[in-house]
Amino acid sequence: MRTPEVTVTDTTAAEALRTLLGGRPVGIVGLGLMGGSLGLDLQALGVEVHGLVRREAVAERALERGLASRAGTDPALLEPCGLVVLALPLDLLLQPSPSLLAALPAAALVLDLGSVKAPVLAALQPRLPRFVGCHPMAGTAEAGVEAGLAGLYAGRPWVITPSADASPDDLHLAETLARAVGAVPVCCDAVEHDQAVALVSHLPVLVSAALLLAAAEGGERAEGDLAGLTRQLASSGFADTTRVGGGNPALGALMAEGNRDSLLEALALYRQQLDGLTAAVTRQDWQALRQALEGSAAIRPDFL
Amino acid sequence: MRTPEVTVTDTTAAEALRTLLGGRPVGIVGLGLMGGSLGLDLQALGVEVHGLVRREAVAERALERGLASRAGTDPALLEPCGLVVLALPLDLLLQPSPSLLAALPAAALVLDLGSVKAPVLAALQPRLPRFVGCHPMAGTAEAGVEAGLAGLYAGRPWVITPSADASPDDLHLAETLARAVGAVPVCCDAVEHDQAVALVSHLPVLVSAALLLAAAEGGERAEGDLAGLTRQLASSGFADTTRVGGGNPALGALMAEGNRDSLLEALALYRQQLDGLTAAVTRQDWQALRQALEGSAAIRPDFL
Repeated sequence: MRTPEVTVTDTTAAEALRTLLGGRPVGIVGLGLMGGSLGLDLQALGVEVHGLVRREAVAERALERGLASRAGTDPALLEPCGLVVLALPLDLLLQPSPSLLAALPAAALVLDLGSVKAPVLAALQPRLPRFVGCHPMAGTAEAGVEAGLAGLYAGRPWVITPSADASPDDLHLAETLARAVGAVPVCCDAVEHDQAVALVSHLPVLVSAALLLAAAEGGERAEGDLAGLTRQLASSGFADTTRVGGGNPALGALMAEGNRDSLLEALALYRQQLDGLTAAVTRQDWQALRQALEGSAAIRPDFL
Repeated sequence: MRTPEVTVTDTTAAEALRTLLGGRPVGIVGLGLMGGSLGLDLQALGVEVHGLVRREAVAERALERGLASRAGTDPALLEPCGLVVLALPLDLLLQPSPSLLAALPAAALVLDLGSVKAPVLAALQPRLPRFVGCHPMAGTAEAGVEAGLAGLYAGRPWVITPSADASPDDLHLAETLARAVGAVPVCCDAVEHDQAVALVSHLPVLVSAALLLAAAEGGERAEGDLAGLTRQLASSGFADTTRVGGGNPALGALMAEGNRDSLLEALALYRQQLDGLTAAVTRQDWQALRQALEGSAAIRPDFL
């Protein structure tokens, strides 16, 4: 499990959040990694959390783990909430169930935590009087009711992609929530967000998965025990480069589906760069290859 | 710096190494990361180390750091050695200087530590009466006389690629050296080694470098501050996937040059896999994409 670099929450923001909520609970729909972690952090700040899930067994386990103050499958749990956070998989955000939409209190601000923003905005904005899209850039390889952990958001960017007609008060509440759990709010346009995460988050998944598939294929095609040798010789460099490609397949496919256009643009850019490196190797232009690698080495610190 | 998982050297092997050397020193040509680390470990085992370098200032620093018992630029340092390890960059192994070749004692077993084996074997084998190619799969991002660290080889595979006419005694000495510093000897054919490292070591460098170049290019081509946003939103997944692509450019180019044929084969396989994933996204076949990602996730544990 990831050890957060910053575990101190912003106490001023926590105080502001409690004031803005005025004693009303926060509703969290879905108590997996994102929702469960948020539930733990909010309760630690003295905020009551109502968790809505789809199965009784999950609600019971969530209560055992302390992910919410109350948890269950009854949509009425959301009624008293002043703020509801949709911590659901992307497909359920893009095609929200009518019963969920009906359960969201008209007076509450609704946030989602989906990893793609423009399509979610298009799906939810017209249906909700108060909605602000969010994407906290935090995660682990875990999923489900056992995955939530305290401090997940600490020190991480929390992207907020308001629509043009979002009210300043709603934006302020979303920002205050982010700060209260120790995250760093980053406001930007939903389309720009989707382009950025296509490049630094979704593209790496496919780049990395293709490497795993190629290494396996290369080992199996050869005579002798090349497959065994590749497995013996793979070291920390291979492990690092393939980590995200060995992640949750369902999540990877959902992100690609939700962010298809930006991902295809990113893939086209990637292919150009890979073709350029391959061409240098093919024509034995070691000077050009070295210059390209000097370029990539010079770029990397900017992203860290 | 990397913390070795296994720091205990093999004391039986260390004893056997001292016996095989019969009190003669081990010569190490080059006291950078690989040679300096080996020098530290061998001296800790009670073996005398003579280091041959190209500049007096490096020799002085190597002695200050304790990388060798004696160090200097005089080839005569190698004369008393029963074993000489060429810890040189790949280009100097592929085109060894006549003065170096002349300085290698005819009675000594010579090993190299280069990351590509078939071309090194072709370059050195005909010129040396006793030669065995080695590739210890260990490293850090550091280079030069400050890079060497104790325990670098502990727990790591140490590939040995003997030619058909290598003597069993020479092989045994190479294996004993590897075990003495805590490494795990792996004997295989030189061409198979080169194919394997093309897939799990050299291909990842280009795959990873192309990702950095594409992310930077994508950010800069767009309007607004997409470049800044990509840098803000890049998280641990991007950092991991791009680590080897941000490494030593000279080393990356040398490995590609030394292992060109196998690397081009690996690049072709990679491109097929990437094209397959891209096609699934293009035709919106999310079932196929998910299956491919399930495949890559299932493969990865075999490589760890």
